Amino acid sequence: MKQFISAEDVQDIPALVNQALAYKQQPLLDKQLGANKRIGLLFLNPSMRTRLSTQIAAQNLGMEAIVFNIGSEGWALEFEDEAIMSGSTVEHVKDAAPIMGKYFDVLAIRTFPSLKNREDDYSELFIRQFIRYAGIPVVSLESATLHPLQSLTDIITITETLKANPLPAGRKPKIVLTWAPHVKPLPQCVANSFSQWVNAWGNADFVITHPEDYELDTKFTNGATITHNQEEALKDADFVYVKNWSTFNNEYGKIYCNDPAWMLTNEKLSTTNNAKVMHCLPVRRNVELSDEILDGPNSIVTRQASNRVWAAQAVLSNILQSK
Amino acid sequence: MKQFISAEDVQDIPALVNQALAYKQQPLLDKQLGANKRIGLLFLNPSMRTRLSTQIAAQNLGMEAIVFNIGSEGWALEFEDEAIMSGSTVEHVKDAAPIMGKYFDVLAIRTFPSLKNREDDYSELFIRQFIRYAGIPVVSLESATLHPLQSLTDIITITETLKANPLPAGRKPKIVLTWAPHVKPLPQCVANSFSQWVNAWGNADFVITHPEDYELDTKFTNGATITHNQEEALKDADFVYVKNWSTFNNEYGKIYCNDPAWMLTNEKLSTTNNAKVMHCLPVRRNVELSDEILDGPNSIVTRQASNRVWAAQAVLSNILQSK
Amino acid sequence: MKQFISAEDVQDIPALVNQALAYKQQPLLDKQLGANKRIGLLFLNPSMRTRLSTQIAAQNLGMEAIVFNIGSEGWALEFEDEAIMSGSTVEHVKDAAPIMGKYFDVLAIRTFPSLKNREDDYSELFIRQFIRYAGIPVVSLESATLHPLQSLTDIITITETLKANPLPAGRKPKIVLTWAPHVKPLPQCVANSFSQWVNAWGNADFVITHPEDYELDTKFTNGATITHNQEEALKDADFVYVKNWSTFNNEYGKIYCNDPAWMLTNEKLSTTNNAKVMHCLPVRRNVELSDEILDGPNSIVTRQASNRVWAAQAVLSNILQSK
Repeated sequence: MKQFISAEDVQDIPALVNQALAYKQQPLLDKQLGANKRIGLLFLNPSMRTRLSTQIAAQNLGMEAIVFNIGSEGWALEFEDEAIMSGSTVEHVKDAAPIMGKYFDVLAIRTFPSLKNREDDYSELFIRQFIRYAGIPVVSLESATLHPLQSLTDIITITETLKANPLPAGRKPKIVLTWAPHVKPLPQCVANSFSQWVNAWGNADFVITHPEDYELDTKFTNGATITHNQEEALKDADFVYVKNWSTFNNEYGKIYCNDPAWMLTNEKLSTTNNAKVMHCLPVRRNVELSDEILDGPNSIVTRQASNRVWAAQAVLSNILQSK
Repeated sequence: MKQFISAEDVQDIPALVNQALAYKQQPLLDKQLGANKRIGLLFLNPSMRTRLSTQIAAQNLGMEAIVFNIGSEGWALEFEDEAIMSGSTVEHVKDAAPIMGKYFDVLAIRTFPSLKNREDDYSELFIRQFIRYAGIPVVSLESATLHPLQSLTDIITITETLKANPLPAGRKPKIVLTWAPHVKPLPQCVANSFSQWVNAWGNADFVITHPEDYELDTKFTNGATITHNQEEALKDADFVYVKNWSTFNNEYGKIYCNDPAWMLTNEKLSTTNNAKVMHCLPVRRNVELSDEILDGPNSIVTRQASNRVWAAQAVLSNILQSK
Repeated sequence: MKQFISAEDVQDIPALVNQALAYKQQPLLDKQLGANKRIGLLFLNPSMRTRLSTQIAAQNLGMEAIVFNIGSEGWALEFEDEAIMSGSTVEHVKDAAPIMGKYFDVLAIRTFPSLKNREDDYSELFIRQFIRYAGIPVVSLESATLHPLQSLTDIITITETLKANPLPAGRKPKIVLTWAPHVKPLPQCVANSFSQWVNAWGNADFVITHPEDYELDTKFTNGATITHNQEEALKDADFVYVKNWSTFNNEYGKIYCNDPAWMLTNEKLSTTNNAKVMHCLPVRRNVELSDEILDGPNSIVTRQASNRVWAAQAVLSNILQSK
């Protein structure tokens, strides 16, 4: 693997999942693999789980990890070609990225969408410019439109759950991605990325449900059943992935509806196949997801978040072995 | 030791002090003890000495330490049960802490008091919620009402000083905690905690002196002689611990008096038994403590601060050995 | 070497340059030298390249490096003797530095000029106070008036370039430091320091060119040819070092002229000896330096920035061996 930006960078998702589960059993299995290798973790916006899990994954492989928070450590980057830099940006990615490429063996980077200009966001300008100029493998710690380490984690968690409690032979799990209310307009990253990965994985009956006007980009959802009827979507579900996102079509990056009726409750779960409930965290309790579900037996969000380590470790291992 | 939040978590204070002094002689005595163990250092408010000394202590034991500054790295936590999180908090401790418990072997955390609501502060809601939900040993790096790593350091420093210059057989040291002026309302943590530890240690004639209306919580001071007469308190003292705190009784978290006459000077020291002067730092020079004392032969504040490493190392060692 | 604050701390610049180039060939040549040694990296203002390169250099020598960003981590230091600290500063360097000296084996620190009070800045109060009170070797990561790790890097880069493409026997390289426009008043550090180092190195025909009223302090430039005629300065140059600085004489720390005609272009380069172009980065593209030069064959800025690691490693190695 030369980079890890989207599901398209992975040839064999089940093999990567198995690698991650092997690391979960033996975190220090490949403790020498990253000896004298160095990863830079650059955050253009803040992160908790992604930062900690990637740092731990790197340590488990014996790599040295250096964290750099760009915002708080005062470094406004320019991404536009031919910019006359007389404004607020102090350094161009064309100058910064090649030096990262000299300092590190692998560069992991978190960028973010503007939620104002859809074309810019969906062109993934920031991370593509880093890839273009760094000259070393780049790992996305979330970009403007995708969050592949989260999605790999999600597939790992689903696989692990099904191994512990197999479905009847021949039945694929029904996986439902449901929109949830939130108080702020959020990126579409997690929803796009989960859709892309479930489709690429291919081992699911995949349904997406959301209010009208919250359609996601079809280049990621293509292949999924899409409905505005949450009740119908949830019926017989084995996994329910809860996530808010802002609008993609029409006006971009807006909140049209925040109907609390879309929040998942135990009553809504009753028509599922005792579905496991997933969320990428952080979660706004009693806005996106009720206490009764998060504190109840169906929630697997803590295990899901803890699997972030093994997803990152499998990806870094794969990259180190490809160099 | 399963947690380190207060003096009550320690069975044998002198043994812990001796362990710390052994590490001071041989920092790398137990370099293998923490191999492949990981400590998370979470700061809900900033820190210099506590962060550095704990990070160094962990390294001396061979642990990997990961620092996370919650404020500056953008992560507003919710601590109230059943909160409807439609406001400024983005994640509940019920969701965050269990994941810390999966990522780390030990969690060290600094919280802080509001100085507005005494009941909330003295219930130690923040750190108690982390303990409740993390599922791993929690070490306080200062909480709303206590600062146990500082207080252990203080007992270490007093013990070390007495070993070098023993008192006549049978005489306990006279230790005086004196209030000092400051420009801002400060927590009562260091004063509470020092009182609790000196009382639990039991090897001192302990006197507390402060202006009227600066009484501390008696659950920590109980056993100490308390006087508003600083001159009387200082007479024949062997150690003088200087510290400001805001009001606990009546109005909570206020400054009633900032009388510069309370600042310690060499003249005031003249009636002591050539007392050693202590302060937890940072210190406002010529407000809390005069240059003449801080730069003179009676001050042991630098040695005291350097002992923070050995206090943290003894605590982490004890926790690692208890797991 | 007991400290690294200016060129005056180095006895033999070519030997230090050769040590750095040896590390570039074999980064882990002295991986054991810093075992169980610890360096503190204190930033009173932010940094990217300096922080990363020094941290990597320390790791290459097997040292543990701990980074502390003073501004963002909330710690306003007092530097004036006898200050009555009733204002915004919370700790005096007299108290903070000795503890750094206990916690670390080497202290690296970045300070900055006020650009308001020339006497204060040029007395280097901040870093001198740290040196005075820390009691351990101090390395400048840039101070109010100098940036020695950058300048050592610059001499390394020039030496390396000349080794690959030697000049005719007996001819010294012509090195031109040229002022460039910028949108903000910047410190004189890099220009001062480059001048000081090129003069101390002694192996160059050294010319400085800038608009009227941008004269630098003669204690650093002494020995260089100084001209206001950029075109004349550039003629037959082998290296052109581009850098903005604010005024030193008359009004201090101001911008008098921002004439875009001073920006280097390929046309201006045509009269040089196919000069290599250097800049310390970050660079404002199309303000300080044109895209055509930064993206063209004459720019060596990326290699220059990557050499920061080897400069820092040579300095730390020298300090560790002197202890």
